Amino acid sequence: MLIGVPAILSPDLLKVLMEMGHGDEIVLADGNFPSASHARRLIRCDGHGIPELLDAILKLFPLDTYVLRPAALMQVVPGDTVETPIWDRYADIIRSRTGRTDPFDPIERFAFYDKAKQAYAIVATGEQALYANVILKKGVISE
Amino acid sequence: MLIGVPAILSPDLLKVLMEMGHGDEIVLADGNFPSASHARRLIRCDGHGIPELLDAILKLFPLDTYVLRPAALMQVVPGDTVETPIWDRYADIIRSRTGRTDPFDPIERFAFYDKAKQAYAIVATGEQALYANVILKKGVISE
Amino acid sequence: MLIGVPAILSPDLLKVLMEMGHGDEIVLADGNFPSASHARRLIRCDGHGIPELLDAILKLFPLDTYVLRPAALMQVVPGDTVETPIWDRYADIIRSRTGRTDPFDPIERFAFYDKAKQAYAIVATGEQALYANVILKKGVISE
Amino acid sequence: MLIGVPAILSPDLLKVLMEMGHGDEIVLADGNFPSASHARRLIRCDGHGIPELLDAILKLFPLDTYVLRPAALMQVVPGDTVETPIWDRYADIIRSRTGRTDPFDPIERFAFYDKAKQAYAIVATGEQALYANVILKKGVISE
Amino acid sequence: MLIGVPAILSPDLLKVLMEMGHGDEIVLADGNFPSASHARRLIRCDGHGIPELLDAILKLFPLDTYVLRPAALMQVVPGDTVETPIWDRYADIIRSRTGRTDPFDPIERFAFYDKAKQAYAIVATGEQALYANVILKKGVISE
Amino acid sequence: MLIGVPAILSPDLLKVLMEMGHGDEIVLADGNFPSASHARRLIRCDGHGIPELLDAILKLFPLDTYVLRPAALMQVVPGDTVETPIWDRYADIIRSRTGRTDPFDPIERFAFYDKAKQAYAIVATGEQALYANVILKKGVISE
Amino acid sequence: MLIGVPAILSPDLLKVLMEMGHGDEIVLADGNFPSASHARRLIRCDGHGIPELLDAILKLFPLDTYVLRPAALMQVVPGDTVETPIWDRYADIIRSRTGRTDPFDPIERFAFYDKAKQAYAIVATGEQALYANVILKKGVISE
Amino acid sequence: MLIGVPAILSPDLLKVLMEMGHGDEIVLADGNFPSASHARRLIRCDGHGIPELLDAILKLFPLDTYVLRPAALMQVVPGDTVETPIWDRYADIIRSRTGRTDPFDPIERFAFYDKAKQAYAIVATGEQALYANVILKKGVISE
Amino acid sequence: MLIGVPAILSPDLLKVLMEMGHGDEIVLADGNFPSASHARRLIRCDGHGIPELLDAILKLFPLDTYVLRPAALMQVVPGDTVETPIWDRYADIIRSRTGRTDPFDPIERFAFYDKAKQAYAIVATGEQALYANVILKKGVISE
Amino acid sequence: MLIGVPAILSPDLLKVLMEMGHGDEIVLADGNFPSASHARRLIRCDGHGIPELLDAILKLFPLDTYVLRPAALMQVVPGDTVETPIWDRYADIIRSRTGRTDPFDPIERFAFYDKAKQAYAIVATGEQALYANVILKKGVISE
Repeated sequence: MLIGVPAILSPDLLKVLMEMGHGDEIVLADGNFPSASHARRLIRCDGHGIPELLDAILKLFPLDTYVLRPAALMQVVPGDTVETPIWDRYADIIRSRTGRTDPFDPIERFAFYDKAKQAYAIVATGEQALYANVILKKGVISE
Repeated sequence: MLIGVPAILSPDLLKVLMEMGHGDEIVLADGNFPSASHARRLIRCDGHGIPELLDAILKLFPLDTYVLRPAALMQVVPGDTVETPIWDRYADIIRSRTGRTDPFDPIERFAFYDKAKQAYAIVATGEQALYANVILKKGVISE
Repeated sequence: MLIGVPAILSPDLLKVLMEMGHGDEIVLADGNFPSASHARRLIRCDGHGIPELLDAILKLFPLDTYVLRPAALMQVVPGDTVETPIWDRYADIIRSRTGRTDPFDPIERFAFYDKAKQAYAIVATGEQALYANVILKKGVISE
Repeated sequence: MLIGVPAILSPDLLKVLMEMGHGDEIVLADGNFPSASHARRLIRCDGHGIPELLDAILKLFPLDTYVLRPAALMQVVPGDTVETPIWDRYADIIRSRTGRTDPFDPIERFAFYDKAKQAYAIVATGEQALYANVILKKGVISE
Repeated sequence: MLIGVPAILSPDLLKVLMEMGHGDEIVLADGNFPSASHARRLIRCDGHGIPELLDAILKLFPLDTYVLRPAALMQVVPGDTVETPIWDRYADIIRSRTGRTDPFDPIERFAFYDKAKQAYAIVATGEQALYANVILKKGVISE
Repeated sequence: MLIGVPAILSPDLLKVLMEMGHGDEIVLADGNFPSASHARRLIRCDGHGIPELLDAILKLFPLDTYVLRPAALMQVVPGDTVETPIWDRYADIIRSRTGRTDPFDPIERFAFYDKAKQAYAIVATGEQALYANVILKKGVISE
Repeated sequence: MLIGVPAILSPDLLKVLMEMGHGDEIVLADGNFPSASHARRLIRCDGHGIPELLDAILKLFPLDTYVLRPAALMQVVPGDTVETPIWDRYADIIRSRTGRTDPFDPIERFAFYDKAKQAYAIVATGEQALYANVILKKGVISE
Repeated sequence: MLIGVPAILSPDLLKVLMEMGHGDEIVLADGNFPSASHARRLIRCDGHGIPELLDAILKLFPLDTYVLRPAALMQVVPGDTVETPIWDRYADIIRSRTGRTDPFDPIERFAFYDKAKQAYAIVATGEQALYANVILKKGVISE
Repeated sequence: MLIGVPAILSPDLLKVLMEMGHGDEIVLADGNFPSASHARRLIRCDGHGIPELLDAILKLFPLDTYVLRPAALMQVVPGDTVETPIWDRYADIIRSRTGRTDPFDPIERFAFYDKAKQAYAIVATGEQALYANVILKKGVISE
Repeated sequence: MLIGVPAILSPDLLKVLMEMGHGDEIVLADGNFPSASHARRLIRCDGHGIPELLDAILKLFPLDTYVLRPAALMQVVPGDTVETPIWDRYADIIRSRTGRTDPFDPIERFAFYDKAKQAYAIVATGEQALYANVILKKGVISE
């Protein structure tokens, strides 16, 4: 543990967040996402929900300001009547940490899988909510 | 994730619990324990408390019935007036999962460090309570 | 060994089952299947039959409910008059563990080989029956 | 699988048996033995009993004829009233495969652990019987 | 060394033969074949001729009975007047070990190289005869 | 780079700082220290001075409050008349970051080498000042 | 450290510079460049600016004299009004070290990313200036 | 060192020469050739010239007699007026070691680079002469 | 294969022989010697006898002339009436290759095992003769 | 190759020289020294003499000025009448590069072997002269 670094972040996750550069992407994947089969680099956070991780990550990790929508979500499959209340929690966290509103880029399901395969890393969480996977694009840091 | 396996347990932790045999020991270490420098095998569970992990582990992991006190705690250093309420939570969890009472073997601080170095694995948790480290000795399974 | 985990499952097999996510596939391959040359990840279970392994795996591993037929079998080659009584045993085990009937997706022989190459893992068993290979697709776990 | 090689033997186990030379020892450990923490080389045979493995191994593996008792067993701890009927099965298998009778060297429990640590390999079986661990010393082959 | 296993077979070669399944192929390559540059898995048997190895391998390794010609040879290049007496020795060994006659599938030179690259393993022997390379296709074992 | 993390810290150094626990030690070694031959884990920071690194590290890394002097320096060898003005800079940085004064434990030269060998990591800097090596002992973090 | 070798160069960076041959390219990437995701070989120089590194590298590393413009820069994106004063510093350093003027080959942004992926190595610096990435092509050394 | 083996050949180079088979190629690359970025296997011979290495290699390594020109050279680029006296030295060495004259296959520059990428190994020498790279094709050995 | 290098020597064995220096020792171990458990480096030569290997090795490998008896043999155990005719073959080969007579240093059995453990490498042969193990000490080469 | 770095130094050797710190030692070993069996890190420079390497190394590598005799030689064994003219060449090179005279610390033969085992690296050269091994102790660099 370190001063000012949320304890939920493992050393490996912090290292990966730090290695990423402008435009690199990271997937926060729910507990049923096929993370191990899709990841170039796999970081396990079993037992944790995505909102807690998202909040901790955004304390340190800037979202890309060069794109309009730096957070990708998986579109609800047409015909599916499921609700996605966790998206509102994500929106609140992102607004609170970055001041940005309307940050989401909805991606068709199979395009989302392809995007996940190209990401720098996938974080395998224990999140139980539906349609909870989110891909974050890293922004620029100017000291 | 698997049916009936607590989601807080990572695949690596489950594998280690499963590989252990009668008499092997595992350390549940708090967030400030020097886990990485003492561990033969290191399993990270950043951000989780020990009570949740202990409860999940004991659902699958038998304590040794060949010894009187299968759970080692670090003795409060003489002169230290700290309270250790987390021990009561551990006692409740162990009684609830195994039916055993009075399971604790108090170990002097430096002897505890030595014992941790000999353990099969150390689980690095994010537990914040004081004197929260505990070493479990695995028992026998008869199918 | 762990409480409630069938002893026939090795630590490596359990870890692989646990790492898999929704839609990932695993092959239970018979003793003559070219497992080592087709596997991305190879788990050896020499000397065990597939029915025992299937029953043990399905105790922990959910089949995909998003597809109609989550278990793929290799079609009998046209002209081949062989009987496949082991399929009935598989059907019984699947019905008993999951309540599902008619779970089988028959796949042409060479398409089956290609599908096996794409699977997350292949389990090399010692099964002696003919046309005994089966590919399972993992479902969702909601705690 | 190979012609004349019992299918219960994995490629790794066969390789280890073959690499061993005169006087090297191998442990057949029961399902609760702390195999992973004691082994120089670990071969997993989860789910198999020791008698089947012993019989398969002795089809290929000669016992040392330069010592009187090439098979070490763990002595029953003084005061323990347990029966060890599996020793009779081992005796039958050894007599049947090698013609030798009275092959057992009883070893005190902790000396047995030390001996296991020095062995060339430990085979982690799923054997459930008590006092079932056995250490075999390899003999000479003259083609 | 093991009882009944020809001493010419190394532990690594035996392991590879055992790992192979129905339809997998292995190349016995002569001393000048570019084995190291073509092999997925390379097994060295420097100093040994192919007939001795072929005889030892076929004691344990079944040829594929699902194809008419389970042993591939490199065709003599058109215009080359070389004799290939070693093929007769191979034919004798195969007939003696398997009862099969006329087992050879002649392959054009460059197609043979491509086939070798796809094989499960290449065994680099010290064979000096011309046109001595042979590719074996593994058959089924029913215990 | 991450928000709030000094850019002078590499991902590997941050990971090591984070993995360390209460009582673990890290060496900030000058450019002539034999770091590679003494380190259990080596982190290179070529071209950087120790004061900048010390200041950046102490932003995140707590010094041990359970000991009186958490920062070890190498004693000036008796008879050596060298000045060590860099120690004053270290004292200023430590006081500024932690509020502690008089934090230094002077260690005889060869005892210092031994202590460095036992440390969790050595950071190889490019510091040019004399007697500039310093060993930091990590403290406790309570979130 | 070595005599005459700038202390800012790490042993790994020097080794990479030395291994490169005529026509090989190396990227000096700023602190926000996605270095880890684009590099065949990654050398970290966190906390250092590119001008200092460029000057140190060119003391040892010859630019290619077979091409007109051995240093590639990323073109300012059309419409972007940013100034790039750091290019003048690069020009000064290159002229001072090599005598060459007008060394820059401007590359369109996405072509620059592709070129970086093909480079022998990427050096991840902490440079904060905009449009600061530069790719150097190695020249010939005649002793 | 070994009796009769030129001391200029390193153990790794000798091993590579020995592993190669009929038709495999090895590149002797000059000191400025981009060896590390083009090599499947890289053997370093820093500080040595190619003539000494060529002479030592040909003492042990047969050139291919199945092709007319077993040694490939890089063609002088059209318009380049450079002399290539080292080719005459190569011709002398090859004639002296193998009796062959006119052994050179001139290859266009970029085709030469592609050929080098396909070679079994590249030997990185310190040769300073121009157009000094040479690719050797291995021949057959009949004991 | 290489010109003048006996084809019985594998690339790995040749590399090991070449890496050895003055005073280093290599064990030629018979087929029942526990080579894998005693070797620092293990070279397998399954199926070959020691005399052929010894002759091939001594073509390249000088025996130490600084000691009187550069070849160690295992003494016949007192009371054992076995003959050791293979020693005469060794003596002939050594005399023929090196001109030396009476080269043998007899070593008590358990001292021989200890010496083998300290050797640079053990060559695991298929030699069937009794008391056939021999340890060679490498001499000096002056070009 | 790099500007100002002698071409006889390989990238690995330069990296090792650079990683060493004050007091670390490196062995320049002759062609018959048992380098591979004594080295913590082994750098091969086959075919090169020690004087050329020593001169190239001392261009970059400072000798320790804190000790009187920073270069250790192996004492001539009592009774041996051999001459050691190469020591004079070493003395000339050291005087020329460092200005120091009388730099040699003579070490008894077996103490020399022990010292070599403790060195940071051993450079295996092809030097043919007698008593040519030399151990250099690295000094301090102040930029």
